[in-house]
Amino acid sequence: MKIKVVESVLKANDATARENRKMMDRASVLAINVMSAPGSGKTTLLEKTIPALGPDHRSAVLVGDLQTTRDAERLDGIAAETVQINTGRGCHLSATQVADGLKSLKLESISFLWIENVGNMVCPAGFDLGEHMRAVLLSVPEGDDKVAKYPILFQPADVILITKIDLIGVLDFDMESVRKDLSKINTRAPVIEISPKTGQGMDKWVDWLSAQRKGRT
Amino acid sequence: MKIKVVESVLKANDATARENRKMMDRASVLAINVMSAPGSGKTTLLEKTIPALGPDHRSAVLVGDLQTTRDAERLDGIAAETVQINTGRGCHLSATQVADGLKSLKLESISFLWIENVGNMVCPAGFDLGEHMRAVLLSVPEGDDKVAKYPILFQPADVILITKIDLIGVLDFDMESVRKDLSKINTRAPVIEISPKTGQGMDKWVDWLSAQRKGRT
Repeated sequence: MKIKVVESVLKANDATARENRKMMDRASVLAINVMSAPGSGKTTLLEKTIPALGPDHRSAVLVGDLQTTRDAERLDGIAAETVQINTGRGCHLSATQVADGLKSLKLESISFLWIENVGNMVCPAGFDLGEHMRAVLLSVPEGDDKVAKYPILFQPADVILITKIDLIGVLDFDMESVRKDLSKINTRAPVIEISPKTGQGMDKWVDWLSAQRKGRT
Repeated sequence: MKIKVVESVLKANDATARENRKMMDRASVLAINVMSAPGSGKTTLLEKTIPALGPDHRSAVLVGDLQTTRDAERLDGIAAETVQINTGRGCHLSATQVADGLKSLKLESISFLWIENVGNMVCPAGFDLGEHMRAVLLSVPEGDDKVAKYPILFQPADVILITKIDLIGVLDFDMESVRKDLSKINTRAPVIEISPKTGQGMDKWVDWLSAQRKGRT
């Protein structure tokens, strides 16, 4: 009984996700679902990435959070449009919540839709939101064992960002071990070492984004 | 329909949790549910705390994780007994999983049962496992906005540990802001600034644990 309910929830979610994707395809919007643990630097990444994409690429952001609007406030004025989605006790965004968010955006006028998921390494992985790409962050302070511990998050990633890379000298973090764990579950996604704070790796990341955008227009 | 199923799952969980607690009370075991985001330092905390409690206080650990045994391996030889509980895709431990784990422990011979929950700031909060106390960790690199963003985790905490405090000079982290957010939702739990790596704050934490233990025997 319980499993049936969960299955039908996932089925309905996937149908809505397909509609979201179609809607964004029609508007030539590239949607990126940004996922990580809490505090890996999702909002900081967007604060620095959106201006770096240049004036020709306007961004909108849907920000998922349990109950505050703190992240949305940080992105207000940086993104062309920002919508906060409060999930209450929900540990991930759903396609229906994204569909609701999309209604309030002028999709025709933007190039990138960033979906900042709820900070969580487990729940968001199972829910297609209608994105085209999944960006997964792992911050250096979280530790080098997280890929092995949360493969369901890293396995379907299209790009993996090792964030707060400026702390690699300060903390024990074995990058080789992370790359070895990734080589077992995801050899497709490029791995970018990045610090939006210092700027390190931002060029590679912006190049990757531009290439994804080109491949779709 | 969906809500009913979820409610009955929670009800069954709570009944099992009560049984767990009774079983530990009979054996004079103090059970502590340790919760935080991934990478806040739960395992490192236990690695340093268990020996610091001294030979008169033997510890057992139930370690929740999606699929690896990495944390349990780290604690093997440090705790008197260690049991790994793999949750598969589950983002929290349940009382039934803890009940299963308890079966394999010699409860009469231990003082502390540590339950290291799955690294997650949302899911574990709703599930009573039969613990006596909840210890919630927030690491400095995660950022000073997490109490406001995840009140459901911090509100029912019995003790709050601000971990990796040795990084406070390296990273922007406004302790006053954290304490202000806590003052709105939890004035009951002591807040301990700690670095199990450097030893800072370990004495306060061990004192707190000893006091909890004394209050129960």
